[in-house]
Amino acid sequence: MAGSRKDVRVRLQRAALELYSERGFDRTTAADVAALADVTERTYFRHFPDKREVLFDGEAAMTRAVADAVANAPAGLAPLPTLLDAFLSIAPMFTEHDRELSERRHRVISATPELKERELAKIAHVTDAITTALEHRDVPPHIAPLAAMCGIAVLTRARLEWLAGDTRDYPTLLADAFADLASLVDPSTGQGFSPIRRS
Amino acid sequence: MAGSRKDVRVRLQRAALELYSERGFDRTTAADVAALADVTERTYFRHFPDKREVLFDGEAAMTRAVADAVANAPAGLAPLPTLLDAFLSIAPMFTEHDRELSERRHRVISATPELKERELAKIAHVTDAITTALEHRDVPPHIAPLAAMCGIAVLTRARLEWLAGDTRDYPTLLADAFADLASLVDPSTGQGFSPIRRS
Repeated sequence: MAGSRKDVRVRLQRAALELYSERGFDRTTAADVAALADVTERTYFRHFPDKREVLFDGEAAMTRAVADAVANAPAGLAPLPTLLDAFLSIAPMFTEHDRELSERRHRVISATPELKERELAKIAHVTDAITTALEHRDVPPHIAPLAAMCGIAVLTRARLEWLAGDTRDYPTLLADAFADLASLVDPSTGQGFSPIRRS
Repeated sequence: MAGSRKDVRVRLQRAALELYSERGFDRTTAADVAALADVTERTYFRHFPDKREVLFDGEAAMTRAVADAVANAPAGLAPLPTLLDAFLSIAPMFTEHDRELSERRHRVISATPELKERELAKIAHVTDAITTALEHRDVPPHIAPLAAMCGIAVLTRARLEWLAGDTRDYPTLLADAFADLASLVDPSTGQGFSPIRRS
């Protein structure tokens, strides 16, 4: 079966997703994935180094895009509004894929410890990239990782809601999650953050 | 060399840390660790299933302790003050170990992708346990994971500062990190969280 380099990658990704969903990750080999995508095993390994990476294509591009979006946010924004601006500007990268395929990928990853660990490593890389980008905007080093992790918490919630078929659009999901983060620490609740010690 | 079951575990942990630091995780076998701890390889595998787990002992107890502390926080506290209360109440679990050993463990884990992934999985388990415990306190399901992830962000920062030899005590590090989280989203900065779109 002929196809451009990009077509082949996409075919391999869809084949992997199908086999990992139906048979399970552990019971599928790279050769099985190659066969379903109608390419040789050698072609598979020209595209992906192992069985995991086929589900994590585009990670480097995504990480760069997030870091660039943070760098390019309007000057003078505080850290969390910077992240909201950045996430909104790259929202199309998150939502360009078919939601049903993305949801299926999420289910396979959640059900497979080895893939789940890889997903967590990916999130950690993105968090580190955001931290560095914030530091380049002169956010102090004791604040930048805290802001990055809270930003990732917001992004994760918006993404899970989107995957679950929420009817709000993605920018609204992001803004609503940021608003909930703000309400979590709104001093008007009167409970503040002073240490509460047991008597 | 004789020793109680607990002594043997501690010896194995120290031996693993020493070898992973000096030779590297990849160039160390369970047999090497057993030899340095003066026990048989068979004894090693009675204590730990593989080379990674020797550095992650006590994870289940820690996860349970955090969840219990969340459950036992005073009624009526908002989610983040609940987490501050919970983290303060279990602070001794984090600081009972020798700081230098903990710092060495942290360095080995950070330098070894396979251990780093395992550490991220541990953090994800704790986050899930906190989320569930918050939901049992009637925190809504769209808020609980957000609060749990922000709480973990705070805990991570306090822990890294403690490992780095910060002179503040652990409760102060926690309270300061929570205060920084609050200042990140304080509406008095005037920047709020309404979506900011590019023109």
